Amino acid sequence: MVSSPVVNMYPLSSYTFGTKEPKMEKDTSVADRLARMKVNYMKEGMRTSVEGILLVQEHRHPHILLLQIGNTFCKLPGGRLKPGENEIEGLKRKLSSKLGANSLSLQPDWQIGECAAIWWRPNFETVMYPYCPPHITKPKECKKLFIVHLSEREYFAVPKNLKLLAVPLFELYDNVHRYGPVISTIPQQLSRFQFNMMTT
Amino acid sequence: MVSSPVVNMYPLSSYTFGTKEPKMEKDTSVADRLARMKVNYMKEGMRTSVEGILLVQEHRHPHILLLQIGNTFCKLPGGRLKPGENEIEGLKRKLSSKLGANSLSLQPDWQIGECAAIWWRPNFETVMYPYCPPHITKPKECKKLFIVHLSEREYFAVPKNLKLLAVPLFELYDNVHRYGPVISTIPQQLSRFQFNMMTT
Repeated sequence: MVSSPVVNMYPLSSYTFGTKEPKMEKDTSVADRLARMKVNYMKEGMRTSVEGILLVQEHRHPHILLLQIGNTFCKLPGGRLKPGENEIEGLKRKLSSKLGANSLSLQPDWQIGECAAIWWRPNFETVMYPYCPPHITKPKECKKLFIVHLSEREYFAVPKNLKLLAVPLFELYDNVHRYGPVISTIPQQLSRFQFNMMTT
Repeated sequence: MVSSPVVNMYPLSSYTFGTKEPKMEKDTSVADRLARMKVNYMKEGMRTSVEGILLVQEHRHPHILLLQIGNTFCKLPGGRLKPGENEIEGLKRKLSSKLGANSLSLQPDWQIGECAAIWWRPNFETVMYPYCPPHITKPKECKKLFIVHLSEREYFAVPKNLKLLAVPLFELYDNVHRYGPVISTIPQQLSRFQFNMMTT
């Protein structure tokens, strides 16, 4: 038999949540965001972004931690790498910025695991693909999603302007309308893993 | 950096295709198929099926080999394991039955690789999910998709009632209407791989 990679999943109730100062979005519109992306591309070349899939369980069903902005838009914690930055170190930096306490001693010891998916942005547009489309020689962004293996206990500090949600796989699946193409197909990318439902 | 698993991909033109005797579907309708599934479940318990993702390249873009039945329905090569059968051996047996030459000496040496996805059928119905839904303690089928690493040269014998198609990822992506939920999200499951485009 082929052995599946294992993810230990602890109950949502084993984690503690606090708040910290707001982390405002850098852009106030999609058009601003794409314009800033273009300026950065001219300076630094292709943008590489990294995002974390943080898993907890409720009723023995996997849930993913998503940051909600306003009342509708959800995103994975993560962000853009600095030019030349290592992707694992960069993802740890971004997770701490988004979810870590301000005190260094309370920072989670982020365990970055398997790459779950890679998405490509061929143009300065919102649409991304899970492959680099034919004839695209200069993609504008590469986004990598990684499994983050959480310890049994963690303290998360959530920026005051955001909400942290634990969303079940059955809510994400086949729900591109609500969560977009990247997040709504995470259930398919996780299906190859063996989930150990831990109790505490 | 996290290293991605590698898939070497050879041009479609490096493979040879012949035909062999028809492999008829065991059922003539979906209702018949679900009824037969129910009878088998009573005898043998949960059905485990295995399917192969066989990759070739055209114009440096990945293509997947699909078997077409009639003019519309496409499926991955594979099938149901015998009770207790090892999944790798079972997939090799099924690939030989669907695509191998009748002569043993011409049979491809199937190299079964990574598990790409696992799908669950909770009831005797057509719908499947990439997780076992909550409250389902006795799923009726578990379907596993594996990457099959093809050698540079192979001879495939295609049953006369079927067509073998090389379908590009960009055709599968976001095309649940044409290919169904399992096949249309293969591009997302493959995105984590590094594709080596080989020339011959």
